[in-house]
Amino acid sequence: MRRLLYDLAADDETVRFSPYCWRTKLALAHKNLDYETVPWRFTDKEVIAFSGQDKVPVLVDGDQVITDSQMIAEYLDETYTNEPPLYGDEPARALTNFVRSWTDRVLHPVLVQILVPDIFARLAERDKQYFRATREARLRCTIEELAERRPGAIAAFQTALAPLLATLGTQLFVSGEAPGYADHIVFGALQWARLMSSTPLFDAGSPLGQWMQAVLETYGLQ
Amino acid sequence: MRRLLYDLAADDETVRFSPYCWRTKLALAHKNLDYETVPWRFTDKEVIAFSGQDKVPVLVDGDQVITDSQMIAEYLDETYTNEPPLYGDEPARALTNFVRSWTDRVLHPVLVQILVPDIFARLAERDKQYFRATREARLRCTIEELAERRPGAIAAFQTALAPLLATLGTQLFVSGEAPGYADHIVFGALQWARLMSSTPLFDAGSPLGQWMQAVLETYGLQ
Repeated sequence: MRRLLYDLAADDETVRFSPYCWRTKLALAHKNLDYETVPWRFTDKEVIAFSGQDKVPVLVDGDQVITDSQMIAEYLDETYTNEPPLYGDEPARALTNFVRSWTDRVLHPVLVQILVPDIFARLAERDKQYFRATREARLRCTIEELAERRPGAIAAFQTALAPLLATLGTQLFVSGEAPGYADHIVFGALQWARLMSSTPLFDAGSPLGQWMQAVLETYGLQ
Repeated sequence: MRRLLYDLAADDETVRFSPYCWRTKLALAHKNLDYETVPWRFTDKEVIAFSGQDKVPVLVDGDQVITDSQMIAEYLDETYTNEPPLYGDEPARALTNFVRSWTDRVLHPVLVQILVPDIFARLAERDKQYFRATREARLRCTIEELAERRPGAIAAFQTALAPLLATLGTQLFVSGEAPGYADHIVFGALQWARLMSSTPLFDAGSPLGQWMQAVLETYGLQ
């Protein structure tokens, strides 16, 4: 059975930077599922029109088409019950939702402020106008204004990390002794930062860098 | 067997406001354990000298003396294994540590900025000098300066709530369908806010107020 993941790419199609696609790629690895990726750009709307919406990740699993990283995670856990669970018991699933809310509402917004100018510079030409228009409307400022505010945005990112760093100070993974979907969610955000920031936001040898490496090594990805 | 909890009190000894003591009181209720409380003030150091340290909560459980809310939670889960677990499986325990880190590193610091002047006003006279000296040193400003910054501190509190409100928007409790220790931790912070703030920080009918009421009702506490 062929399994395809539509995966957001930069101008260099080997650079796959979407935090949500990373959630799905780690979830697939956690479930020991092989897949191929299709590099996809923001403006390739017609390419995924078959999914009934216009965002990635889109997973095609045999005759199933699943969109939205959260829906994909739930689909994988319900479909591949003989593989390791992404969550754990019911409280772990609920607590993972808190980590997801923190990532979506705190970590992503501070990273957007840093990364949007860097992402813009590395997009395929055909994506640039779309990206500028949508992000400037959403953020209510120009990409150039964002770039000027970079030092403050980096300080806000460092402050926002406090609960994550405290957690990783006392345990190997957010989900405990092995990575779970909570780790995949947070990893996605920091992988987005690591791949796209024009200046390093944390060192490979830092607690964050070491935890990311341990996540990848768990799945034989690096 | 007698079970005693040393519980921080205001000048009015019926006002028990410590967020850490609230964690322990809810954990005891979750475990269906009866206990009596001993009202304790910040300067009653000699009263708990038998515990080998000078902070509450202190739990005396028969011939066991346990200090620190986190140590007490672990003691209760290990000792009363026939009662409902405070966490769930290993991932749930680890994920609860993330909620605790967020509460300790994000929610408590913003609440301290609001509450310290209000707490000061309601302490027993013998506690006031100690509280002023320790808090002013820790916060590097006077209680009066903190009071002047109250509007900004309230705005920061409301911003900080985002991941909690998003989580409670899709599930009944932080731990899912029933409260767990993650709920007790967050409840402690907001009960501290509710009991001590000189102005209401959220309404009883708001999602936060309703969730707090549901936690209390789960344990027959209100």
